[in-house]
Amino acid sequence: MGLHEDMVAMGRKAVIASRELARLSARKKNAILLAMADEVEVQREAIKKANAQDVELAKANGMTGAMIDRLALTDSRINSMAKGLRDVAGLKDPVGAVISRWIRPNGLEIVKVRVPIGVIAIIYEARPNVTADAAGLCFKTSNAVILRGGKESIQSNGAIVQALQGGGAKAGLPENAIQWVPTIDREAVKELVQLEGLVDLAIPRGGESLIRAVVEQARVPVIKHYKGVCHTYVDKTADLEKALKICENAKCQRPGTCNAMETLLVHEAVAAKFLPIIAQRLGIELKVELRGDEAARAIVPTMKPAIEDDWYAEYLDLILAVKVVPSVTAAIEHINKYGSNHSDAIISNSEDAQKEFTHDVGAAVVYINASTRFTDGAEFGMGAEIGISTDKLHARGPMGLEELTTYKYVITGDGQVRE
Amino acid sequence: MGLHEDMVAMGRKAVIASRELARLSARKKNAILLAMADEVEVQREAIKKANAQDVELAKANGMTGAMIDRLALTDSRINSMAKGLRDVAGLKDPVGAVISRWIRPNGLEIVKVRVPIGVIAIIYEARPNVTADAAGLCFKTSNAVILRGGKESIQSNGAIVQALQGGGAKAGLPENAIQWVPTIDREAVKELVQLEGLVDLAIPRGGESLIRAVVEQARVPVIKHYKGVCHTYVDKTADLEKALKICENAKCQRPGTCNAMETLLVHEAVAAKFLPIIAQRLGIELKVELRGDEAARAIVPTMKPAIEDDWYAEYLDLILAVKVVPSVTAAIEHINKYGSNHSDAIISNSEDAQKEFTHDVGAAVVYINASTRFTDGAEFGMGAEIGISTDKLHARGPMGLEELTTYKYVITGDGQVRE
Repeated sequence: MGLHEDMVAMGRKAVIASRELARLSARKKNAILLAMADEVEVQREAIKKANAQDVELAKANGMTGAMIDRLALTDSRINSMAKGLRDVAGLKDPVGAVISRWIRPNGLEIVKVRVPIGVIAIIYEARPNVTADAAGLCFKTSNAVILRGGKESIQSNGAIVQALQGGGAKAGLPENAIQWVPTIDREAVKELVQLEGLVDLAIPRGGESLIRAVVEQARVPVIKHYKGVCHTYVDKTADLEKALKICENAKCQRPGTCNAMETLLVHEAVAAKFLPIIAQRLGIELKVELRGDEAARAIVPTMKPAIEDDWYAEYLDLILAVKVVPSVTAAIEHINKYGSNHSDAIISNSEDAQKEFTHDVGAAVVYINASTRFTDGAEFGMGAEIGISTDKLHARGPMGLEELTTYKYVITGDGQVRE
Repeated sequence: MGLHEDMVAMGRKAVIASRELARLSARKKNAILLAMADEVEVQREAIKKANAQDVELAKANGMTGAMIDRLALTDSRINSMAKGLRDVAGLKDPVGAVISRWIRPNGLEIVKVRVPIGVIAIIYEARPNVTADAAGLCFKTSNAVILRGGKESIQSNGAIVQALQGGGAKAGLPENAIQWVPTIDREAVKELVQLEGLVDLAIPRGGESLIRAVVEQARVPVIKHYKGVCHTYVDKTADLEKALKICENAKCQRPGTCNAMETLLVHEAVAAKFLPIIAQRLGIELKVELRGDEAARAIVPTMKPAIEDDWYAEYLDLILAVKVVPSVTAAIEHINKYGSNHSDAIISNSEDAQKEFTHDVGAAVVYINASTRFTDGAEFGMGAEIGISTDKLHARGPMGLEELTTYKYVITGDGQVRE
């Protein structure tokens, strides 16, 4: 059999599994999740051994230290995977919930009920813990999942999947509920995201080039975010002490994340006061490289000059682009032109400015007087997240369990016919 | 400028318009809708003249009578267009509605609020009234729309768009809120649905080949239904009198619609009693051509034999495929294999059978003891519909005003930073 036939066969098996999954009770699903968590711990040494092979190959291939760190599975990371599965078991099952219900004048009862999406393909890169996280969330919502991890973590992913399948099977996990693509052939991704009628949704997680490749090849719907170019706008009415704390947090608390600030916009009326404070605290004390526009550099000449590319940049590092703007409207225009519709914040005490900003900024999540770092499923109180969406349809912002479901209409009559 | 540049320019203008649209109050939007309706009536003669050119060309090209009927704009159809716009003005505006709101332990207030999608492309075929209907619904929900009608109705569509734009402008319709692609070049559709970052959603309405072409070419999300292969399953516990009434309605009340029944499944325990009744009422009195499987033809030998293709067929005509099944489970399997996830019904007095059917059938709308003909925005009480979705994401079943919106998170803090 060729790759195409293999992937079609995988898709068909997933569809069959998805029907079985839809019939499992929440109690049964939770027992299976706990059994998977136990088995991840039981298989700890096998997982570490497989991971050591991946790490060895990565080193031989000259992978950077930061990437090897993301790849490596320590005991504490294996514990986290198991805990993650147990946490998901403890969350409320959204499947079967009634979203709304109404009765038509002719007596038809219309019930809009939450149902699984069906078959979900997860395409991801180096981090092997995604294997357990994504499988757990998809399973909890009665979706069959097809996992396609990065080639760097293929041995680790295989070992984790084996633990999930083996542990789950002991408690009644339907066959093929969790499948894994065991080849590093890139064509497999293309085949996977073209399985219209078999795969209902693809969620790519990784760098922008991976995600763009998936979108270009896909025939099935894709939910994703390309990158997080998050802005903080400090208004002329801002409490500058709060603004500094928020900027420091948004830029420095974990600069490598998609919800970290990449560009700071400052109103011209407070720039002369605020930018020197930023230069001292972020630039000097916290070693952030500042890249300013002309007006910002007129105030803080030690800033490097920003070029056009800086406004589009997702640095994921201790670098910050800085621009002085004449108004909240100008800040909004900048954000909507250069931003990525992920998370943007306004620091302001003016209700008018807050309203204009939250209304006109196109991002999935807009903040007033808070750090963009809160865009995260756990911080939203969702318990867990499968990813973050900057798309406009189906799901926006952090995607939790509800966002892994859809709905159907169940209509009950007593012989009604249409006039 | 080439076609590509033209379409990009159109997309950019739509994005700018969409920001203005998002700021319009419901009251203002309704006044604009009423002004559009008035102008459609004022421009009645111009619209009819343009339509006459389309009809003349269609006749010269040998178009069938049924298709010419769909194309022709009579006074009553023009009245319906104007009334449709006024009806939409009377509906509740979903934009700005708070979907949910919660406060996190750290004091952050998270508000999930309904917002427009942005820019919507509607790609449709012969019926020119879609021009006014789609423009009205997209405008009501503060979405900019780019309309791309069929080549057969190009003069009519142009005249209708002119009335909508002209009438709307008098009451403050933002420039480029309603745009129209005035070329019959098929490449324009491809360009339109590849405007990632400019067009947020494409909704194709028409025959299966049009929709498949859009999906294959699209880089932007598409919501659609390919076809409606709707089933009615008559269970062994069915009230056969009700079943007959429902089957007659589902098949014959308007056979050319996507929610009409195409296949009848009958439980073997009642087939010998029910199929002769169907053969008499539908087959003889209502002139429905019946195509049965072997078991059905053993009971009613006058049925034509059904072949494999019949189970996939959307006849849109007075033809019905008929199959005898041994159980509700077998009916569900048939539906999930051959159906189109549109609308399927069970006629049964058994709660167990009803439950199994509504749970396991994958359709967007599942009926108990009622006709599938009710899958329609107006019948659901939505007031109006832009189309029907058999997709699994964002919107399923009839799509009304709410389904033309999405949401954003607006988060208000008082200086919160992430620990």
